[in-house]
Amino acid sequence: RVNGQRLWNTLMEMAQIGATDKGGCNRQALTDLDKQGRDLFVQWCEDAGCTVTVDEMGNVFAQRPGRNPDLPPVLTGSHLDTQPTGGKFDGVFGVLAGLEVVRSLNDAGIETEAPLEVAVWTNEEGARFSPAMIGSGVWSGEFNLDYAYARTDKEGKTFGEELARIGYKGELPAKPRPLAAAFEVHIEQGPILEAEEKTIGVLSGVQGMYWYDLTLIGQPCHAGPSPMETRRDPFMGLHRILDELYKLAEEHAPWARATFGDIRVEPGSRNTVPEKLVLAVDLRHPDQNILDSMDQRFREIAARVADDIGLEHQIRDEWRSPAVKFDDQCVEAVRSSVAGLGYSNKEMVSGAGHDSVYISRVAPTSMIFVPCEKGLSHNEAENAEPKDLEAGANVLLHAMLKMANP
Amino acid sequence: RVNGQRLWNTLMEMAQIGATDKGGCNRQALTDLDKQGRDLFVQWCEDAGCTVTVDEMGNVFAQRPGRNPDLPPVLTGSHLDTQPTGGKFDGVFGVLAGLEVVRSLNDAGIETEAPLEVAVWTNEEGARFSPAMIGSGVWSGEFNLDYAYARTDKEGKTFGEELARIGYKGELPAKPRPLAAAFEVHIEQGPILEAEEKTIGVLSGVQGMYWYDLTLIGQPCHAGPSPMETRRDPFMGLHRILDELYKLAEEHAPWARATFGDIRVEPGSRNTVPEKLVLAVDLRHPDQNILDSMDQRFREIAARVADDIGLEHQIRDEWRSPAVKFDDQCVEAVRSSVAGLGYSNKEMVSGAGHDSVYISRVAPTSMIFVPCEKGLSHNEAENAEPKDLEAGANVLLHAMLKMANP
Ligand SMILES: NC(=O)NCCC(=O)O
Ligand SMILES: NC(=O)NCCC(=O)O
Repeated sequence: RVNGQRLWNTLMEMAQIGATDKGGCNRQALTDLDKQGRDLFVQWCEDAGCTVTVDEMGNVFAQRPGRNPDLPPVLTGSHLDTQPTGGKFDGVFGVLAGLEVVRSLNDAGIETEAPLEVAVWTNEEGARFSPAMIGSGVWSGEFNLDYAYARTDKEGKTFGEELARIGYKGELPAKPRPLAAAFEVHIEQGPILEAEEKTIGVLSGVQGMYWYDLTLIGQPCHAGPSPMETRRDPFMGLHRILDELYKLAEEHAPWARATFGDIRVEPGSRNTVPEKLVLAVDLRHPDQNILDSMDQRFREIAARVADDIGLEHQIRDEWRSPAVKFDDQCVEAVRSSVAGLGYSNKEMVSGAGHDSVYISRVAPTSMIFVPCEKGLSHNEAENAEPKDLEAGANVLLHAMLKMANP
Repeated sequence: RVNGQRLWNTLMEMAQIGATDKGGCNRQALTDLDKQGRDLFVQWCEDAGCTVTVDEMGNVFAQRPGRNPDLPPVLTGSHLDTQPTGGKFDGVFGVLAGLEVVRSLNDAGIETEAPLEVAVWTNEEGARFSPAMIGSGVWSGEFNLDYAYARTDKEGKTFGEELARIGYKGELPAKPRPLAAAFEVHIEQGPILEAEEKTIGVLSGVQGMYWYDLTLIGQPCHAGPSPMETRRDPFMGLHRILDELYKLAEEHAPWARATFGDIRVEPGSRNTVPEKLVLAVDLRHPDQNILDSMDQRFREIAARVADDIGLEHQIRDEWRSPAVKFDDQCVEAVRSSVAGLGYSNKEMVSGAGHDSVYISRVAPTSMIFVPCEKGLSHNEAENAEPKDLEAGANVLLHAMLKMANP
């Protein structure tokens, strides 16, 4: 069993880097604070006897040797970057639970057959650099390196420059190696486990998610003399499209999601009807067929509304992450570990994307969830119970041991 | 009569300062380009024998002496600042038509009894520093100087700093002096004169306009796992408020206006339901009672929708410019000048705010409109016919002469 108090202390120490007034974290990818967080993690791993390597995407791998160095390692990990108004647990818990597994095995003097690894994947959140999960995405072959390096933040700084600047552009090629298994433990970021009073979520997969930039282009004109009837006003299109997309999500309730996280306006002058609005659209559904039908409806709605109002419109596919089904053997390793430990549990699908989405393409993978308070995440008030975090780390420990000692 | 060709050439020369690729102008208030435009104007006025003074708001006054220096001057003028994607005529025409009046009187060797003045009012657009018409607003006592100096642009630079930086923080107190009359000639910025094939608009007043910042505050949460039903999503409020405000404008068609020129989002991350939206709202109506009823309805709509969705909301009054009625004698001076010159014309109310709104509080004031192409303004494609601009300047010349030779 892991040391729950030590895990909690480690989480709280990491949370001081980028701590916000409201008790959350702002430690966005490839900032100075991200570097500080990484440096601290690397130090902890080295102190725990691990060998640390960094790949050309800044993904960090801390390896605890196994008895048989020829066996492919069992990997766990998640991310240390946060949302701009993020919490202390999203991602960080998965990384530090991995470290706690290593520390606990050290304390107990337990060797494994296969090596164990704890990974930190770069820019999982997609908040500073879109898309999300780009570190694990390049590593697993979904994106190529040049695409990743060229991604820009809102100030126009590139991923590649910022990665080099914080000193985490490593030598190791960002590409898959043979792995016996990959696990990731994470807070649920939703309300189900808490509502059903379950300690552990046994994940069978991840819902599909599509990201778009919807651009509406109208005709700028003066707010005063220009008659309402002749305006080609992007806001007139926006409100109808939002309305129809919320209704589309309702049609596919309770699982569909429609989220608008960002909007830009040009020229952005109070007394001028805008020329352009750019809306970030995020559509999700666990059923790939339904998600694809939502995708079609979105395109149809945007085209029809734009046409009605005399707007031009463009839809740019920013990111497409289809629904994922995890590896049966890995899911079973989690299931039997939970059963052995006697935790209440529920089989479920993840609503959020995780690095495991991409890792699952090149290695047998599954995930473990623990409840979080009120299901709140991507929020500074994000919170979780120490006993649930400890339980999640225990399940991780047992699942990793099962796969590392075949 | 004025020299229409010279007027046109002068407009085209000024338009080179801040010229945009699409044929418009981006010469926002208190930028380096605004300084260049002002410098050029000052040079032209001095070459035309005027004495130039600058007040502490950066308002510029170019005086052509009268035969009787004790008589209060007859003033004309407008502004040289533009929208970020503005045109070549909005404001600039009023300033350079004033200069053309001076030049034409010089050519003809005509002296007036009262002195004549051409004014450039600072930051009329309100695009860089809100509110609009702040130069004439301070001068006429609507705003105080400290309030104006403390206004910030989107980058946080203050009006006071920027005014000093470009060297236009003058010594003259920004406060009214006795004026015999004030006239302003401007493009209509709307489609009425063009549609009715009239050359001149004889203005009886300006519609009322209210500016607000509407803030909607919800609860940030994760775009994936968070159920739609429990979200407190500011975009869910936004689309309903937009819808109801557009319907409100329709109820009071054809004169009511509802415009949303800008929107900000926090934290602005694709996969996070925003915490906050701030929408710039501009409501207008020529009838003060109807505008006040729209103001009440807006407050009621925002409160009800926010309440429905569990959002907090705030409405900040950014600017309130009530409906204006111009001075009878000045309107009559314009009317009789138009009649004397034989131009087709229409009596109308301005849809846009102008410096004359504030000047009319402290001096007898009225305005003259000329048509602009397709009624388009606050748009780089803004355009006007040389012959209409010439006609407007001729009406200005005659109206000024009437009031300067009592
Ligand atoms: N866990 C998490 O926040 N992932 C980011 C990708 C997503 O938006 O689901
Ligand atoms: N003419 C003009 O653009 N004025 C600015 C104030 C307004 O928005 O009406």
